[in-house]
Amino acid sequence: MPTYKLTLAYEGTAYAGWQIQTNADTIQGNLESAIQRITGYAVRVMGSGRTDSGVHALGQVASFSADSRLDGNEMLRALNGNLPLDIRVLGCQIAKDGFHALRDATGKRYRYHIRDGDLPNLFRRQYSWYVPDHLDEKKMTSAGRFLLGRHDFSSFEAAGAPRATSVRTVSELDVQRRGGEGREEVRLEVHADGFLYNMVRNMVGTLVEVGRGARPAEWVAEVLKARDRQVAGPTAPAHGLFLVHVDYDDV
Amino acid sequence: MPTYKLTLAYEGTAYAGWQIQTNADTIQGNLESAIQRITGYAVRVMGSGRTDSGVHALGQVASFSADSRLDGNEMLRALNGNLPLDIRVLGCQIAKDGFHALRDATGKRYRYHIRDGDLPNLFRRQYSWYVPDHLDEKKMTSAGRFLLGRHDFSSFEAAGAPRATSVRTVSELDVQRRGGEGREEVRLEVHADGFLYNMVRNMVGTLVEVGRGARPAEWVAEVLKARDRQVAGPTAPAHGLFLVHVDYDDV
Repeated sequence: MPTYKLTLAYEGTAYAGWQIQTNADTIQGNLESAIQRITGYAVRVMGSGRTDSGVHALGQVASFSADSRLDGNEMLRALNGNLPLDIRVLGCQIAKDGFHALRDATGKRYRYHIRDGDLPNLFRRQYSWYVPDHLDEKKMTSAGRFLLGRHDFSSFEAAGAPRATSVRTVSELDVQRRGGEGREEVRLEVHADGFLYNMVRNMVGTLVEVGRGARPAEWVAEVLKARDRQVAGPTAPAHGLFLVHVDYDDV
Repeated sequence: MPTYKLTLAYEGTAYAGWQIQTNADTIQGNLESAIQRITGYAVRVMGSGRTDSGVHALGQVASFSADSRLDGNEMLRALNGNLPLDIRVLGCQIAKDGFHALRDATGKRYRYHIRDGDLPNLFRRQYSWYVPDHLDEKKMTSAGRFLLGRHDFSSFEAAGAPRATSVRTVSELDVQRRGGEGREEVRLEVHADGFLYNMVRNMVGTLVEVGRGARPAEWVAEVLKARDRQVAGPTAPAHGLFLVHVDYDDV
């Protein structure tokens, strides 16, 4: 029975997040329904991790095993024919036996979009967090350097969802001003070997405090050291967040 | 009684176009309802022109007269507080007496987004036309030059909606490849003293025939000369089209 590895993009706006729930429209639920229509029986899909309601994905990874003769490309076409247009399979291949999207993930990359300035851009309202203050992206870059490396990130972990360990290694944290003529979007990109629940959104909320001048860059080092969620900045909203890529050693 | 001039942005996806209709959600209808909630009585809003269902605006202009003491900024805030989030007033000023958004318009600028390549981008599905063929934007630029200047544009006018004259002057027609890392979007921008019904979408559909190699650039000169809608390319879909700006001599 082959194990399929899927790479997925989705717009999270219309969904109650990744994880299957009764009476809620979810990404996992739509995938499992599509597979059931193709194979004729119920299959469990594993994601590399959950994404919250409103969070988007450019490269989520999922896996499932099914008694099917379809090769990767055939399964990709069949899935896209059975999925809504805001969930798309970008890649599908038959993985080595026992491949598991959650357990085998070795790292992840997230991106977060912030719109600052006088007026929100209505075409970006589902894809970026609008902050009315001007953000100093250079100060945010300096502050972000304190988060690089191997640390206990308890201060950035949502309450009530503790992992076995809150130590993670952040290998990249990049803040850049982007966008069209007005350069009106600040984009944060972060790569780590793994993320605690709400860790990116809590990092973003904290760095925005620095960007808008409410706190100095060094404050972020104190927040990290405190290992206390209470001292960090607010949680940035879900709709600015994109899961960009999930790393695996091999497939 | 002051006349207000509004500059508006909207996402057309959820609406049955600009023009008020019974039993349909329209931009004009939402504006008139918002004004009625503010002023307490029914007011007619004039747009610089209609936009079809799915067409977006970055700078539509509208005007209305109302017995109100609100200045431009106060009216702007009141309107935005009474409008859905996908319709935003970007500017509001008190215009000279008798200002009329439709009659006084001296020119318009439209933009059209086309996504080409192997896969549609799901985050652009409401904002760009997906064409699976690769487009040669240089050929489209050459073909577009035939449309510059003063011509009878009957070949690009939708059937059943004739204007008094189908002569218009196209002062600019620019085709560029844009977008992120993949440069996967072709953007067409066109300025004229006025547009016939569906003229931009018919120009785009015709230039795409050249871009994908189905027709040579010179074919566009023949289409223009024929003054016959039957010989032009297909009408490009509404959702790639943005009304960017409306010109007025003064306010």
